[in-house]
This record gives sequence, structure tokens and C-alpha cells, in this order.
Amino acid sequence: MTTATLVVQEDDANLNSDIVKDYIKQLRAIDTYDTYAGWPEAKIIDPVVLTRERKKDIPVVGDPDEITIARLKAYYNSLATLIEKKSGLMAAPIVYLSHEGFGRALIMVGKLIVVDKILRDTHRFGFSSLEDLREKSDLAIKKALDLIEKYHAAATD
Amino acid sequence: MTTATLVVQEDDANLNSDIVKDYIKQLRAIDTYDTYAGWPEAKIIDPVVLTRERKKDIPVVGDPDEITIARLKAYYNSLATLIEKKSGLMAAPIVYLSHEGFGRALIMVGKLIVVDKILRDTHRFGFSSLEDLREKSDLAIKKALDLIEKYHAAATD
Repeated sequence: MTTATLVVQEDDANLNSDIVKDYIKQLRAIDTYDTYAGWPEAKIIDPVVLTRERKKDIPVVGDPDEITIARLKAYYNSLATLIEKKSGLMAAPIVYLSHEGFGRALIMVGKLIVVDKILRDTHRFGFSSLEDLREKSDLAIKKALDLIEKYHAAATD
Repeated sequence: MTTATLVVQEDDANLNSDIVKDYIKQLRAIDTYDTYAGWPEAKIIDPVVLTRERKKDIPVVGDPDEITIARLKAYYNSLATLIEKKSGLMAAPIVYLSHEGFGRALIMVGKLIVVDKILRDTHRFGFSSLEDLREKSDLAIKKALDLIEKYHAAATD
């Protein structure tokens, strides 16, 4: 994967969105060797933006990269964090992966499943742009909050 | 683990319970090499009964045995199958294990979590007797059916 050229621009307005800000925080949290120290935010989030060219360079045989899996898990942590903030209820993410890149991501609030996503092609986990990331996340959060409202008793059980 | 001496007797009345019958079916399903061909049912289910002596012989360092994990997953498949039969609603089991034997087992019906069990010490997954297996399963199924009744809209979403 070519990472020499950044795709995300430092003035991308989506860098200020809740999801991107929290996601960068999660990515820093898993950066145990301080590789990201001194990096601009655009550079930290950059690898989750997969343009068509970047996708082409990722082999899809065998198991996905560990770093890709870590980024995927960090993303669902972020989603859960925002759902938790907005609903005031604890949200627990579960990312369940079998081999070869298949799996399922769940976010649970009480006894309710508020996010349920079948994962495929996790070798190429990513978004086409930061805007795409923000839009998909906003939609997932909205759906989760709607479910919590609709099934409030189960969500608070 | 000593398996030379069977713990489960062939006249154990619990062999006729729904959960044990389904569990044996699940165990046969994962027996891809036909090791169990011709075995009495008591012998197939026997390894999931862990007496104190058997427990003592299982080391708890490192990851659990693959066969133990397979038996654990088969158990939650059985639970889900019975919940599905009794509720008439599709029930999906998810067993999620991290390393060293910790994890979580979930059964979902619609958007509802009807079984949620923290797994610890999965190296020693098992029951003290077939009666213990039947009683714990009956209780889990009853709780699941109660939840489905209570939050029927979420369970059928």
C-alpha cells in the first residue's frame, strides 16, 4: 500500500466532525509505540481513506493485516463512544472476525442491538473519503438512537 | 485429561432431555472424521461433564484446546436451536473469544440479546453433571423466552 502521498488534506472540514475526532483519539490509543507523535491529524486518519488506487494494491488472500483489524475495531469503538455520549446509555462494541476477513460488528445498548453490520472484505476496511466516513457514521448513529428510542425498555434493561 | 473412565452412565435420564439430545447432535455435526461412529450417546457427551478430578487435570495456561472451544460453541448452538424452536423466532449464537480463554457468548433474537454470558476459564468449559447441564440450560432458555415475551417488538424487528 502506498502511503507516501496523503489523501486527506489538512484543511478537510470533516476533520472537525465528532466521529473523525473521536476516531483519531482511538487510533492514538492503539499507537503503543508512539509512531504518531508529532503527526498532524490528517496523517493519522489518512490510512482509513481507501481510494480506488489504494484498494487495488491490497491483496485479499489470507487473513487481513493486524493493523487493518485494529483500525476496524477502533472505528466501532468510536461509533459506540458517540452513541453512548448522545444516548447517555452505555454502548458496548463487539467485533467478531472469523478467518479470511469475514465477520460481524455489533454495538449493544442494554439488551438491544443498535448496530449490526456484516463484515466482508475487511482486508480493505476503509472509506472512500472522510466525508464518506462521516456520512456513514452519522447514519449509523442516527439509526442506533432511533432504535434506542423505539425500544427504550430493552435498551435500559 | 483422563477419558478412559466414563462419568456419564448410559441410563442417565438426562440423556433424553431436549438440550442433551440437541447437544449430542451438534457434537456429531462437528465430528468431521467420524470418530463418534458407533459410540453410545453417553460417550459422546461425556467430555463436557467435568468432575473435580477432571478439572484438576486441565492446565489453564495458554489458549484453550480447540476441541474445548468447539464444544463450547456447539453448546451455544444448541441453546440457540432450542430457543428458536420454543419461540418460533430465529436465534443467532455468537461466541466471541479473546486469547487466554476469556470471552463472551451471545444469542440474538431480532434486535434483542436474549443470552449474554461472560466466558471465563473456558479451558475448563463443562458442567458438573448432565443434570447440571440440563438445569442451567433450562434456566437460560426460560430467561430468553421471558425476554422475548417482554420485548417482543425488538425481538421481532
